[in-house]
Amino acid sequence: MNAGKRSGLLALIYLLTISAYADDGYRLWLKYDLIKDVAKREAYARSAQFIVVSGNSLVLKTAADELQTGLQGLLGKTIPIIASAGNRTGGIVLAFNKTPGTNNQLVNDEGYQITSKSNIIVSSKTDAGVLYGVFALLRQLQTTQPIDRLSLTSNPKIRYRLLNHWDNTNGTIERGYAGGSLWKWFELPATVDPRYRVYARANASLGINGTVVNNVNASARFLTGEYIEKVAALANVFRPYGIRIYLSVYFPAPKVIGGLKTADPLDPEVRKWWADKAKEIYTVIPDFGGFLVKANSEGEPGPQDYGRNHADGANMLAEALAPYDGVVMWRAFVYKAAGTPDRPKADRFKAAYEEFKHLDGKFNKKVIVQVKNGPIDFQPREPFSPLFGNMPQTPLSIEFQITQEYLGHATHWVYEAPLFKECLDSDTYVTGKGSPSGAATVAKVVDGSLHGYGLTAIAGVANTGANRNWTGNPMAQANWYAFGRLAWDHTLTSETIAREWVNMTLTKEIQTVKTITDLMLKSREIFVNYNTPLGLSTPWTGEHFAPEPWQNQSSRPDWTAIYYHRADSVGLGFDRTTTGSNALEQYRPEVQQRWSNPETCPLPYLLWFHHVPWTKKLSTGRTLWNELCTRFYTGADSVGWMQQQWAQVKPAIDPEIFADVTGRLETQHKEAIWWRDAWLLYLQQYSRQPIPAPFKKPERTLDDVKRSVDIYHLR
Amino acid sequence: MNAGKRSGLLALIYLLTISAYADDGYRLWLKYDLIKDVAKREAYARSAQFIVVSGNSLVLKTAADELQTGLQGLLGKTIPIIASAGNRTGGIVLAFNKTPGTNNQLVNDEGYQITSKSNIIVSSKTDAGVLYGVFALLRQLQTTQPIDRLSLTSNPKIRYRLLNHWDNTNGTIERGYAGGSLWKWFELPATVDPRYRVYARANASLGINGTVVNNVNASARFLTGEYIEKVAALANVFRPYGIRIYLSVYFPAPKVIGGLKTADPLDPEVRKWWADKAKEIYTVIPDFGGFLVKANSEGEPGPQDYGRNHADGANMLAEALAPYDGVVMWRAFVYKAAGTPDRPKADRFKAAYEEFKHLDGKFNKKVIVQVKNGPIDFQPREPFSPLFGNMPQTPLSIEFQITQEYLGHATHWVYEAPLFKECLDSDTYVTGKGSPSGAATVAKVVDGSLHGYGLTAIAGVANTGANRNWTGNPMAQANWYAFGRLAWDHTLTSETIAREWVNMTLTKEIQTVKTITDLMLKSREIFVNYNTPLGLSTPWTGEHFAPEPWQNQSSRPDWTAIYYHRADSVGLGFDRTTTGSNALEQYRPEVQQRWSNPETCPLPYLLWFHHVPWTKKLSTGRTLWNELCTRFYTGADSVGWMQQQWAQVKPAIDPEIFADVTGRLETQHKEAIWWRDAWLLYLQQYSRQPIPAPFKKPERTLDDVKRSVDIYHLR
Repeated sequence: MNAGKRSGLLALIYLLTISAYADDGYRLWLKYDLIKDVAKREAYARSAQFIVVSGNSLVLKTAADELQTGLQGLLGKTIPIIASAGNRTGGIVLAFNKTPGTNNQLVNDEGYQITSKSNIIVSSKTDAGVLYGVFALLRQLQTTQPIDRLSLTSNPKIRYRLLNHWDNTNGTIERGYAGGSLWKWFELPATVDPRYRVYARANASLGINGTVVNNVNASARFLTGEYIEKVAALANVFRPYGIRIYLSVYFPAPKVIGGLKTADPLDPEVRKWWADKAKEIYTVIPDFGGFLVKANSEGEPGPQDYGRNHADGANMLAEALAPYDGVVMWRAFVYKAAGTPDRPKADRFKAAYEEFKHLDGKFNKKVIVQVKNGPIDFQPREPFSPLFGNMPQTPLSIEFQITQEYLGHATHWVYEAPLFKECLDSDTYVTGKGSPSGAATVAKVVDGSLHGYGLTAIAGVANTGANRNWTGNPMAQANWYAFGRLAWDHTLTSETIAREWVNMTLTKEIQTVKTITDLMLKSREIFVNYNTPLGLSTPWTGEHFAPEPWQNQSSRPDWTAIYYHRADSVGLGFDRTTTGSNALEQYRPEVQQRWSNPETCPLPYLLWFHHVPWTKKLSTGRTLWNELCTRFYTGADSVGWMQQQWAQVKPAIDPEIFADVTGRLETQHKEAIWWRDAWLLYLQQYSRQPIPAPFKKPERTLDDVKRSVDIYHLR
Repeated sequence: MNAGKRSGLLALIYLLTISAYADDGYRLWLKYDLIKDVAKREAYARSAQFIVVSGNSLVLKTAADELQTGLQGLLGKTIPIIASAGNRTGGIVLAFNKTPGTNNQLVNDEGYQITSKSNIIVSSKTDAGVLYGVFALLRQLQTTQPIDRLSLTSNPKIRYRLLNHWDNTNGTIERGYAGGSLWKWFELPATVDPRYRVYARANASLGINGTVVNNVNASARFLTGEYIEKVAALANVFRPYGIRIYLSVYFPAPKVIGGLKTADPLDPEVRKWWADKAKEIYTVIPDFGGFLVKANSEGEPGPQDYGRNHADGANMLAEALAPYDGVVMWRAFVYKAAGTPDRPKADRFKAAYEEFKHLDGKFNKKVIVQVKNGPIDFQPREPFSPLFGNMPQTPLSIEFQITQEYLGHATHWVYEAPLFKECLDSDTYVTGKGSPSGAATVAKVVDGSLHGYGLTAIAGVANTGANRNWTGNPMAQANWYAFGRLAWDHTLTSETIAREWVNMTLTKEIQTVKTITDLMLKSREIFVNYNTPLGLSTPWTGEHFAPEPWQNQSSRPDWTAIYYHRADSVGLGFDRTTTGSNALEQYRPEVQQRWSNPETCPLPYLLWFHHVPWTKKLSTGRTLWNELCTRFYTGADSVGWMQQQWAQVKPAIDPEIFADVTGRLETQHKEAIWWRDAWLLYLQQYSRQPIPAPFKKPERTLDDVKRSVDIYHLR
């Protein structure tokens, strides 16, 4: 059977199967199920009678193939790919023109434009742009939008849109909750898992154009010739999808695998080693993306071990990449121990700013400093990092965490777009008082529009794993999707993205779409309520699974829970005003002013900045204690509400996915009550107040909760 | 759509898909693809017009469903399940009769008989036996055997046929090479992965009737109420397939989770704790199988910590299980540090015998002592453990390792049936001189026929993981299959099993079946040749992946490589005769006699028992050094032969599986040469002899090899 016939048969079978088989989630949002509405399907088919593509670009070929595959599923027919339309109309033309100026001026290098007149034309200045346009066109069909009068123009606002995989050489994933690593290092390069291509497709469909395949707590293995070959085999799979590969590097690699006596970034031999290494990599991976570095952070070595600073380290790597189109992403997630006898007043909140702010302007132009969205570490809610807006001469990338390290792992349903958006839309007030609202959001720092960054980037710590459905919780696929969509266009709303995803992934039944979208949009706030309301944070130790607000023993004060919540007989919360650590001084006066006053500080951030008396009356009319209780109880109760809502979607949802999510919600409800009880029973020791009506006090004691948490300390 | 129609449609689609879709290996050997030969299919169909089953046994229902599912695929039609045949003929009757004596006397409790006259009758004394009979009947069809004149009787020779999963609470698997654990503890009990049922089906199809779901390096978590609930949810899935669940237990659990001050097995409170715990488990898992214990082994705590012995520990647990139908499997894999200053002459080889032999007769009747096949630890080739035959009053179970810890992980293709059989067929000579050959094989010890054990058991350390294809290497599915088939009937030949598996899993094309079967049968000897020929062993450290015969540093002498091979300027090998550790004294005189003389000792075991001079001429006519070189070189070259043979099967094999195995063989070839070079370059320092013609000396130096191995010491 030739390839065309085979693919036609495959499509037919595919169509036959999708309606009957249980959905195991493997296909993600790229389902391309046959459009059931015959009229609509035929209307689409009239505009999609052929696909025109010319040239021999690998990515363009991918674009045509993806379009053909998608249409095959959606329309139930094999649309021919031809080299020229001639006089024909009613087809789709993929138009890629390398020469700037000859193409539409409305698009940047990766942007696309889709117009429909006699033919639908998907055009871009680059082949990758065409591929993104193709996926956008397919999304129109997947979400049953009209395509006969299309006039769509879309540009990515950020140039480097990356996933970061914290995957280890042994196949485990740090903070992975969906099975082991996708990357099978022991089999590579000779055995290439077909799944790698599916991964690339999914990312390309969102516009993600880079991926860092190994953990930031990096193994030096990846810089050996043996592993570079393995990485190259992955790069070969990703390249046709416009995805470049990056590596996390272990800073002392020149010592560990190079045999040098030092890894001092100013040492000429060390610099030569890195330059040679870059050359070696680019020889086999000509489109290698660059390096991601975690240095002098949480025990990882770095330039400070040699009396150098972060800029020295980053710039050395940037110079090694000078001959190539690669960049260095240097993470600002650094913090020296805070609260120790020698640094009793130090505040981890301030650490990144303290170490990086003064380096602004000192980085090589190929360096991007990658900053976590908040000042601490991916908590369910954090204020934006004060670094944003404060390094105008240094491109800052934002790092979000898609994997739910602090969001209930794969069990709890938390749609993260509202979390991402809350940070991106935060106003840094960098342009000064009186500037229009929204002029200086974090998004505008990151997309370069505020400071005119030469490079712009965004990174999401992946939630993918080798589980068949990729993300463990089927609902967590939406977080991968949302990250990708926002990386492309941070102005999209959480609701738009949710609605798209539900339509493409779960169902098109209108009321069900509405119900699920509503659940998604509320899910993050519900989680915050039962987990860390009012600006609480970091009640975790170990695996970041079980509640441990009582945890007070560690090798470092800032690795205890009590360091963060500071509960005492007076009240609760971390004073970061002038009477405390004064971390607020790192923000602009407008922000300071609002947040430094407990009366005007938004309640969601209250305990991030203030030590608030238990009896203090909040804007809700309740005391701090009663408000805490209210939020913990309503949060946990809301999971019950989620269960009820979910029960209603059963008729419109695949039974396997329905059962899976039903089970997870049951666990989530149980654990939400666990979290509520853990916090409140613990804090009650300090507040010495009862659980207010109408809430019923927990059925267990604090010791009961501690015992149940202790289970998770057993190996 | 009702269930029947839906299942009919599913079958249709299933049939349509199987020929076109790539095979991802998920279906294992239970493929049930449509039989292409129409005449044969119709002949089968005439004998399978209906399925008769009555009664409300869960397992019997499974049997009928599995038969229907299988026939649906193989014959392409939905065969109705009815309660009574009446006068009808041409159907399949599942006949289960609990009353002994009313059924065929040729079968034991789990055995089955299949006869075909007017109907095909699958009968057994138990519902599980019917289920096994159903799978046997389906196997007839899958391997295109006639079914119209069937007269099959088959009995399992061993009562407890178990998989042992070394799976951890965090989702990793100790010695797992096929992805993370199948068991999703954080989701259980509310979310039940549909894959658990597929796992159960696969095991039931082989007759495996028990599974230990957690690592022998056990977490105490599994004995908490929280985890017992999770385990119960798995048990609920396995029960309809006749599979009982077992737990590995952490001996100090009464202290760690029970809050007691001791775990002394003779302490009344400790004994009560275990009795209560057993009661708690049986309340929710009424068919719980029992406990597996690794105690006082490799740092795990045990009864010796309290001055008690293994029998004290095992008997305490057995008494806790006294009210229930459960057993204790107590592992004999124990060894105190050997070669230390205080025990310079101690030999790890002798350790299990030394600790257990004198306890014979001291164990509770519910205890089975589980012995690894060889005296050390699952090496590519080991002589049988001298414990077999030496504990006539204690039921001994044999523990094989299916996962390829020392057999090249998931990359190297090693069919293990010959390894299993080599041990099972070894003659212990327990019945004394002059007894007929084969009268006292290890198999006859294990199946109880030699000593009349009250309980018989066999365990295989699973090679399953969450990878889509279960075992990483598609060819390693055959090892799961072979273990299961031999656990049922150890008299089956390696070839029969291989042929069955290939037919059911890969292809029915006669020449291809032959080629692949031949590859399988030779694969283990090829691995031994390039890895540990002539009785070498244990040239590993760490992850048991890379060669390290030079490894000489460890916290214990018997955790180095040099402890085992003892290379020096004179020769190579571990003298275990009277001039050495005299481990041979643990075997019967007949065995001793043969193995203690280097002239009569079989070459495959030579270096296990003798320190042989480099220049010693062996029975092959070559010196030891030249024979070693010959085996290492021909072993590595044979992988090239495997590649050539495999290339020929392409037309008859699914392309995805073909490509996967092709890639793995490429890696295997590279690594085989790596192993050869590592060993020979290292040993050459002692032999001081050249690589003999016609072999070409390695292209690298010993330092080169060491550097390439060092990569795998980097995190």
